[in-house]
Amino acid sequence: MDAAARLSTRARPASHPNPGVACILVRDEIVVGRGWTATGGRPHAEAAALAQAGDAARGATAYVTLEPCAHRSERGPACCDLLTHAGVARVVAGVEDPDPRTAGEGLARLRRAGVATDLLSSPAAQASLAGYLARAAHARPHVTMKIAMSLDGCIATAGGESQWITGPQARAHVHAQRARADAILVGGGTWRADRPRLDVRLPGLEHHAPQRIVLTRGVAPDGVRVINTPAQIAALEALYLYVEAGADIAASLLADDLVDRLEIYRAPIVIGGGRGAVSNFGLAALDDAHGRWALVERRQLGSDSFEAYSRQRQE
Amino acid sequence: MDAAARLSTRARPASHPNPGVACILVRDEIVVGRGWTATGGRPHAEAAALAQAGDAARGATAYVTLEPCAHRSERGPACCDLLTHAGVARVVAGVEDPDPRTAGEGLARLRRAGVATDLLSSPAAQASLAGYLARAAHARPHVTMKIAMSLDGCIATAGGESQWITGPQARAHVHAQRARADAILVGGGTWRADRPRLDVRLPGLEHHAPQRIVLTRGVAPDGVRVINTPAQIAALEALYLYVEAGADIAASLLADDLVDRLEIYRAPIVIGGGRGAVSNFGLAALDDAHGRWALVERRQLGSDSFEAYSRQRQE
Repeated sequence: MDAAARLSTRARPASHPNPGVACILVRDEIVVGRGWTATGGRPHAEAAALAQAGDAARGATAYVTLEPCAHRSERGPACCDLLTHAGVARVVAGVEDPDPRTAGEGLARLRRAGVATDLLSSPAAQASLAGYLARAAHARPHVTMKIAMSLDGCIATAGGESQWITGPQARAHVHAQRARADAILVGGGTWRADRPRLDVRLPGLEHHAPQRIVLTRGVAPDGVRVINTPAQIAALEALYLYVEAGADIAASLLADDLVDRLEIYRAPIVIGGGRGAVSNFGLAALDDAHGRWALVERRQLGSDSFEAYSRQRQE
Repeated sequence: MDAAARLSTRARPASHPNPGVACILVRDEIVVGRGWTATGGRPHAEAAALAQAGDAARGATAYVTLEPCAHRSERGPACCDLLTHAGVARVVAGVEDPDPRTAGEGLARLRRAGVATDLLSSPAAQASLAGYLARAAHARPHVTMKIAMSLDGCIATAGGESQWITGPQARAHVHAQRARADAILVGGGTWRADRPRLDVRLPGLEHHAPQRIVLTRGVAPDGVRVINTPAQIAALEALYLYVEAGADIAASLLADDLVDRLEIYRAPIVIGGGRGAVSNFGLAALDDAHGRWALVERRQLGSDSFEAYSRQRQE
């Protein structure tokens, strides 16, 4: 299932608006087919893997990051039926599909057709479907907030200088993270001060341009969509929103508990009395701050460090 | 030499006012003697290792973190003579002794007596002698500054609440770091607000109390030594000074470039609009902030992370 979750990263973000799913078919300990959700959402991962496997799918086990769908659409048959017709013997699903048209019915129909099923609640599969699961659980995209700061937590000097705190490897990493998002959000202040291009400056990815969103109460600049309140991110047609925020936007998103993942880049510099990373968002006591974030990833990017923290919620 | 450097940590801080040196004697690939500077500075590491080895020292190689001393004192003979008389065949020194009474003369005298010598400039040995080398190079103690902060670089909430940002494992680590210092410095504001005990609350170390220093322009509290300017740390009888600073003291020490090592504890919490870790110390441009600090240690302490950064100086 971990291999399937890794494979599913190939579907992101091009599978939008569908979740990026992956399927691996194994027969007699040999991988006979691999598939992931195609650009635009179809074919589904299972259909792609079955097409690759051909007759070898008969008797195989299918590892799928998300429960196979039980609903037909005009774009193709339901995946649980495809798996049954191909003669797959067992289906292992990483996560139950929260879509009410499936929601357990995919696995149930497989069992009624004589196919063995397992449902794992796999953390790797859950992480690989974070955007889709956030839409289902919170009716909004999965929100990643990026902050680049000094060791003392400053995102700019007292005079406002912020280019460059981090080095070229960290900045290339940011471009790769942008490429994984459907939409990128900045605040009106950042937009007016920096006119950020918010593009993906990586070889081979120059033409992947996530939707650009500005959160502001002011006038809409040309060529970008504007939202006026953090809550309006729910209306964005995106599974993954990447926020490159100043301190005020960061605070307003945190105040509304709209951040699922914090990505922090830290340069080995001390600024002293600079601009803080996050403005006051109404924290009443230190006790309330604990238990909300868990470190899930850490790496070194040249002399800078990168850390990702995941919001811990009792679902 | 790395083993000798690790062994020398047993001498710190009790060897004060002498450097904490270690010596390992090896003959025929067998360790025949180990020694480190005793409490109060004598016997020296070489004397202790030779006493342990006895006749086995003849023909051995001595690995010493610091060049053996060439100067006799009323407290004992010079170590280079001790090594010669014991019949040691070869001496490998980690660092040349900057003390003008030795400064290469220890190794030179060994060579004149027919003993082979090597001088390594070992980074591990240099790090193990940081306090002694800081005294020689900068005429002041080695200064470690500790900061405990949130992910967004706050050391307290906007209302001033700072207990507790970090968890019990991080706080135990702080006690262990205090135990390695000769003196601990806080600012007048911290002293008046928290009345910190600055003690070492670790089993077996309760009675090791580093000297307590308050940096303030105000009146001296009872039972502590007061200094009025950062420059006065030069006069402290300490090899290792540990600073538990608020943002203003942190800035004043950084402004005078008096910090050799930054120890940063970070809790996985976001405070938002809290008190910054370091006040403005006059940084003119971001460019000037780069290249000064290098990550030298990182560890996880429960849910908190610990990082140590070393000041990079062109000596």
